[in-house]
Amino acid sequence: MSSGAIQHIGIIGSGNVAWHLAHHLKSEGLTIDWIFSRNEQTGTELASSLSTKYISSLDEVQPDLALICVNDDAIQSIISQLPDSIPMAYTSGTKPLKDLLLEQQEIGVFYPLQTFSKEKAINLFEVPFFIEAENPVFAQQLFDLAWKLSRSVQFASSEARKHLHLSAVMVNNFTNHLFYLANEYLSQHDLDWQNLKPLIQETVSKLDSLSPFEAQTGPARRKDQATIETQLALLEGQQKELYQLFTDSILKTYSNK
Amino acid sequence: MSSGAIQHIGIIGSGNVAWHLAHHLKSEGLTIDWIFSRNEQTGTELASSLSTKYISSLDEVQPDLALICVNDDAIQSIISQLPDSIPMAYTSGTKPLKDLLLEQQEIGVFYPLQTFSKEKAINLFEVPFFIEAENPVFAQQLFDLAWKLSRSVQFASSEARKHLHLSAVMVNNFTNHLFYLANEYLSQHDLDWQNLKPLIQETVSKLDSLSPFEAQTGPARRKDQATIETQLALLEGQQKELYQLFTDSILKTYSNK
Repeated sequence: MSSGAIQHIGIIGSGNVAWHLAHHLKSEGLTIDWIFSRNEQTGTELASSLSTKYISSLDEVQPDLALICVNDDAIQSIISQLPDSIPMAYTSGTKPLKDLLLEQQEIGVFYPLQTFSKEKAINLFEVPFFIEAENPVFAQQLFDLAWKLSRSVQFASSEARKHLHLSAVMVNNFTNHLFYLANEYLSQHDLDWQNLKPLIQETVSKLDSLSPFEAQTGPARRKDQATIETQLALLEGQQKELYQLFTDSILKTYSNK
Repeated sequence: MSSGAIQHIGIIGSGNVAWHLAHHLKSEGLTIDWIFSRNEQTGTELASSLSTKYISSLDEVQPDLALICVNDDAIQSIISQLPDSIPMAYTSGTKPLKDLLLEQQEIGVFYPLQTFSKEKAINLFEVPFFIEAENPVFAQQLFDLAWKLSRSVQFASSEARKHLHLSAVMVNNFTNHLFYLANEYLSQHDLDWQNLKPLIQETVSKLDSLSPFEAQTGPARRKDQATIETQLALLEGQQKELYQLFTDSILKTYSNK
């Protein structure tokens, strides 16, 4: 491993994370040597969008860094295909580094705490990146690479990263699914989802001046059982279960307040 | 009832909705004649902040409109205390108008679809207001009053309003509670909740260009069972139940995609 700055990067994967990181790294002056992906179609698309090449074998590559942007269950297999001499980093929030440590290969974590969809451009400048590696020189190289993309770069243990990722699932994946359920519910009743936009904006805007504990409003916060019963009667199945579980959890949170 | 514009308003209630509507109405040039509230302390505070008077009985009041900003279960009792000649409107999302219709009193709905916390200033200009009244002249007066506060005013039936309110509970109350749970979870592990802010911003920002269906990411969307199992093992009690229920619901939503 060279101790200089990382300049030549190979990207492994062609999903949402690979797409955005590759484009941002290129924008910051890094060289994307190639894209490797099991999915030839999306791999070729990503390579083409970056004016670089798509490769179908990892046998003879030699970048400064192989950035592994694939599902957790595919990381191990990718590592075993890479030549021993290539430093590599992966972008998973959950996979512990110790599960992947190998004698002859340099490996680290390069985890951006953000949601990426291919169709949506994104500003990475405030996105927290969490870095981990056993070798301090390599860790610093990864840190410096992340610093080209963001002003929020931190070293974090696998343990801390796992907790951050779980909390991210709560505030993004589950929140977005609530938006989906509300959208579906309104559509079923021929009502316009756009009516909820100012409320959704304010839900987030409140966090600038109030904690989530302080910002809570609504029937469960007011212990308004009549409204809770009316609303439960409008729902069924998983949506009803979710309503009941949230209501119980909010009631419990404010039970002595 | 006069058919002219509403100018003199009495506010009933002194909670979050009363606080914000009273201040915004005053800002738009309406006269707040008085505040009536069961809670003398907060009622006096609100009256004082508006330079108006707090009253403890509804016997002899005579505004153009009594705006009832109280919990659903208190509306009926308030109505019975008001002199017959006073037009009144209430701000509830759920209470059907037909449950409250009376022979001798004019009554309508003035429902802002928004979350209000006393400590957080708010811009009402894009907030949807939903208006309902049997008498079309009174309905128009309420519409015109809302139009002084917002450029998103619509007539809506009690049925439509009930559905809108339930969807608002999902995207605000439940979303905010997810923020609370994530905050608590990170605190328990000595991690900084501020790390989630860019992600939360992006979760909402995505809705400008993607539907919630398209915007979904995360382990359940990827059908990444290994990560789901790891994350379930980190949780217990209601949080684990919520994780399981959201995961099942997301898996089901994308089961054929």
